[in-house]
Amino acid sequence: MITTQINPQSSSTIEVSNCLFLKALAQQIRVNDSYGTYRLWSDELLLKPFVVSKEQKRKISVEGEVDTITKGRILAFYRAVAYRIEQETGQLAQVVVDLSHEGFGWVLVFCGRLLVVSKTLRDAQRYGFISFEKLIEEGENLVQKGIDYINRFPEVAKN
Amino acid sequence: MITTQINPQSSSTIEVSNCLFLKALAQQIRVNDSYGTYRLWSDELLLKPFVVSKEQKRKISVEGEVDTITKGRILAFYRAVAYRIEQETGQLAQVVVDLSHEGFGWVLVFCGRLLVVSKTLRDAQRYGFISFEKLIEEGENLVQKGIDYINRFPEVAKN
Repeated sequence: MITTQINPQSSSTIEVSNCLFLKALAQQIRVNDSYGTYRLWSDELLLKPFVVSKEQKRKISVEGEVDTITKGRILAFYRAVAYRIEQETGQLAQVVVDLSHEGFGWVLVFCGRLLVVSKTLRDAQRYGFISFEKLIEEGENLVQKGIDYINRFPEVAKN
Repeated sequence: MITTQINPQSSSTIEVSNCLFLKALAQQIRVNDSYGTYRLWSDELLLKPFVVSKEQKRKISVEGEVDTITKGRILAFYRAVAYRIEQETGQLAQVVVDLSHEGFGWVLVFCGRLLVVSKTLRDAQRYGFISFEKLIEEGENLVQKGIDYINRFPEVAKN
């Protein structure tokens, strides 16, 4: 189970409260925590499963279907991207994930008629980042690009 | 099973060869017919399950998951829309369907960064049109609107 694995290399460096993207990500997970399972967990602990080392990835089979927990993690990540774009631009952003049973698929984030994020996924069973730094880099990069698209095509984003 | 149901009211009026949209729709179904199940079927017979009367719809439960055949039909319809938009504009169009287990969800067709079709679905278990005329009307309407969006925002569609 990836859920309970902890990557010791990153565990000491992470400070969720200093990072808007990580805060948004933790929030997305808590929003779906209807039974309060994570109520007493710190944000740091909540986000640890997003870090998956190369070695751990290799051990995860890409044969079967993507499990529900991994799917939830993918959705939480892109919802955090959408939420940050909303915060910065005031534009409502929707997330759509279309994953085949083989772990291939699309993730789209859109504002009005504008796709602010458009990504293909593969081997989604192995979803994760090699470090928190990489997670933040990828998340903030997507947020920034999304904002740039909205600034370039404001009329489409409002349509 | 809706698959084998035939709606006698519409069966006499349909002429697939005269309608670009119906031709595209039949083609989308044949593309996925890897085992040649429908090889000897006429296009007319192939498309009949898309017509579902109000009474038939009422009899289909919206409690369970959307079955694979209905999902395939939804995908075929929007792929036909995408194909027709490609034919008319030369822009590659992708289809993404994100359906929850309860029959709610999104259908998106996009060219580059532009959403040319953006629709929410509900009660997808009951997917179908009350007549072929309604099917054609809906399909051609979506194609035309998609083309209009591409003409309005060509830079976004190419991005």
